[in-house]
Amino acid sequence: MKKMLIFAAALLMGASAFAQQALFGGSQVESPVINADGTVTFRYRAPKAVRVTVSGDFMPVQHMEFEMNGRKMSYDAPGVGELKEGADGVWEYTTPFAVAPEMYTYTFSVDGLQTIDPANVFVNRDIASLTSVLLVPQEGARSDLYAIHRVPHGSVSKVWYPSATAGFDRRLTVYTPAGYESSREKYPVLYVLHGIGGDEDAWVTQGRATQILDNLIARGQARPMIVVFTNGNISQEAAPLENSTGYDRPTMSLPQTMEGTFETSFPEVVKFIDSHYRTLARKQSRAICGLSMGGFHTLYITLNNPDLFNYSGMFSAAIGTGSEQTAAHKEIYEDIDGKLAAYFAKKPALLWIGIGSSDFLIQSNNDFRSKLDAAGYPYTYMETDGGHIWRNWRIYLSEFVPLLFK
Amino acid sequence: MKKMLIFAAALLMGASAFAQQALFGGSQVESPVINADGTVTFRYRAPKAVRVTVSGDFMPVQHMEFEMNGRKMSYDAPGVGELKEGADGVWEYTTPFAVAPEMYTYTFSVDGLQTIDPANVFVNRDIASLTSVLLVPQEGARSDLYAIHRVPHGSVSKVWYPSATAGFDRRLTVYTPAGYESSREKYPVLYVLHGIGGDEDAWVTQGRATQILDNLIARGQARPMIVVFTNGNISQEAAPLENSTGYDRPTMSLPQTMEGTFETSFPEVVKFIDSHYRTLARKQSRAICGLSMGGFHTLYITLNNPDLFNYSGMFSAAIGTGSEQTAAHKEIYEDIDGKLAAYFAKKPALLWIGIGSSDFLIQSNNDFRSKLDAAGYPYTYMETDGGHIWRNWRIYLSEFVPLLFK
Repeated sequence: MKKMLIFAAALLMGASAFAQQALFGGSQVESPVINADGTVTFRYRAPKAVRVTVSGDFMPVQHMEFEMNGRKMSYDAPGVGELKEGADGVWEYTTPFAVAPEMYTYTFSVDGLQTIDPANVFVNRDIASLTSVLLVPQEGARSDLYAIHRVPHGSVSKVWYPSATAGFDRRLTVYTPAGYESSREKYPVLYVLHGIGGDEDAWVTQGRATQILDNLIARGQARPMIVVFTNGNISQEAAPLENSTGYDRPTMSLPQTMEGTFETSFPEVVKFIDSHYRTLARKQSRAICGLSMGGFHTLYITLNNPDLFNYSGMFSAAIGTGSEQTAAHKEIYEDIDGKLAAYFAKKPALLWIGIGSSDFLIQSNNDFRSKLDAAGYPYTYMETDGGHIWRNWRIYLSEFVPLLFK
Repeated sequence: MKKMLIFAAALLMGASAFAQQALFGGSQVESPVINADGTVTFRYRAPKAVRVTVSGDFMPVQHMEFEMNGRKMSYDAPGVGELKEGADGVWEYTTPFAVAPEMYTYTFSVDGLQTIDPANVFVNRDIASLTSVLLVPQEGARSDLYAIHRVPHGSVSKVWYPSATAGFDRRLTVYTPAGYESSREKYPVLYVLHGIGGDEDAWVTQGRATQILDNLIARGQARPMIVVFTNGNISQEAAPLENSTGYDRPTMSLPQTMEGTFETSFPEVVKFIDSHYRTLARKQSRAICGLSMGGFHTLYITLNNPDLFNYSGMFSAAIGTGSEQTAAHKEIYEDIDGKLAAYFAKKPALLWIGIGSSDFLIQSNNDFRSKLDAAGYPYTYMETDGGHIWRNWRIYLSEFVPLLFK
């Protein structure tokens, strides 16, 4: 064995020699850097570039307006920071303000080309866009919920269920709370739905949902629960690169997204979970929520199955888009007044509605709330700053979850 | 409800209007494109750039030599393709050859800055490097094992186990084969270890291990088994952004990687798996394998626990680096001749060794094989083209797994 020991430990230190081979390495520039005063510095090495900017949801917003179907709508676009080139070809920008604790995403624009930060390996995919992640946690701030702490962690599983509707197996993400494997207890179940073009990964990457659950449960602010993240694009098996269509470019123009098929098929997901996990398989122990398209799905799954869910959360719900009119399963969008009456007659524990004050969907959500108000139906409402963005959806989830299964 | 239906479905079609808000969009350039003749075209939009190149492991290699500790070593670096700028500022390169079916990674270099392909959302992280993924599957080719097929899929879970050695909970990836949840059967277990700087995600992203397992099992070429992917950096809780140190930049210079602590602690992982899953908890139903540092770990975990594993696989094992000499747990690297004798006296079912002919570790692996040969110890050996790269490790796993638990 002595023969084997002739190399020095230097092999491990000097690994850059093998950079080409093992893909060690990465960028030499440090970015982003959270400075002691709370400002954040971004750097990008591009000696030949003419203009480099950074854009992300930590920047002050610009208010934008546009018209759709004759209706005035508006949204907030993130502002842009101009990087200045240093002598070494490294461009740099430091925010002129302390960045508040939050989880943000950002990209650079280099001579007009949008790109992630090559010095930052924390990347999120949302549909077909990659963005770099900036996480600024702080004890006591809400963003502390998005950080990993040394608390008991639940398990997060990618699981395939047979969909009779789709005719193939489909992928779910399932969170089982810490202690699930070694206990014999039965647990309540929360179903969490993503937006259009997203998938069963979205809530656990951009949404930090499993960290939120771990932390709320550890603090005693939420009951231990099973959480199921579905894929709401019924024509898909799973997230990109995880389905048999292989190398397809993710796209938003998926068939069968908001025309009733997914909503109609939803009980098959519930049946699979109830038969494969130790669940409390009853209405009072079941909740559902979703963002944007998932909020739309949540509403119609709830109304068409009034005995299934006791808690429903609509986060920036994409209601009022007109997609119901050309639906394959038109019946689930019909007689809404009757379905609302039947649903509320059964006294559900919670209908929760959250939306940003500059979300382009706020008017249709206001219309829906007016309808509820006129009928005297109870619901809980939260309005936050900002628009149709993940920051808000993380907030809504962390507000909704503590209210469940009391 | 009619009021809600005033928007057209155009909202969903015309989503580009909300690009700023919901991070829809992405690059307008199509890249990479696998052409009908098997060549691949890469595109990058950079009107102001001076030079754009693409580099990846599909390119013909350049043979590189260097010396380490007076010993001549060599490796193969991927060649580089020069993109040409079109009138529209879009740079383009088409390989002058058909790209063989395989899973590759590549990056662009734009005026010297290494970056991923902004038009390709399939990204792998390896330590601190991001690379874009090019998957060229073909029926009958080995790379078809790396694609998702409509076969029964196992579940893939991120699970935390309490490590008494580390003093905190640590994250594992656990694959349970299709049917596990609904059966009452007990299963054999394979432990799969990553290389230095990698983590519990590496084998399921770059390694495509769960696809390989699903496909081999579906073809009847492997027994259904539980597969456990550990994190071999005992000082870490989990992969980057999944541990309580938060926003740390991943680095290769981790403490406690090849000095005995992980190897010594390994039985606590086996104990956790045997107590939380339906395993066949006996030597004849247990296997272990690993790449590079994980091959090193595999060797010493096997030799120091001769009653634990019946099958051991060393993939491009980082043996002979000298790290053993300064180890915290020196004892596990001592008396190797005696330990080899004791191990082989118990007639293990398989010691499997695989390495690339231009791997910088081939000499130390040859030395180790000479030692085995001299003592007449049986082992299976596979030598492939190429160096210390993931392509080889996927091949070794897909060769090793069918030999297990016969």
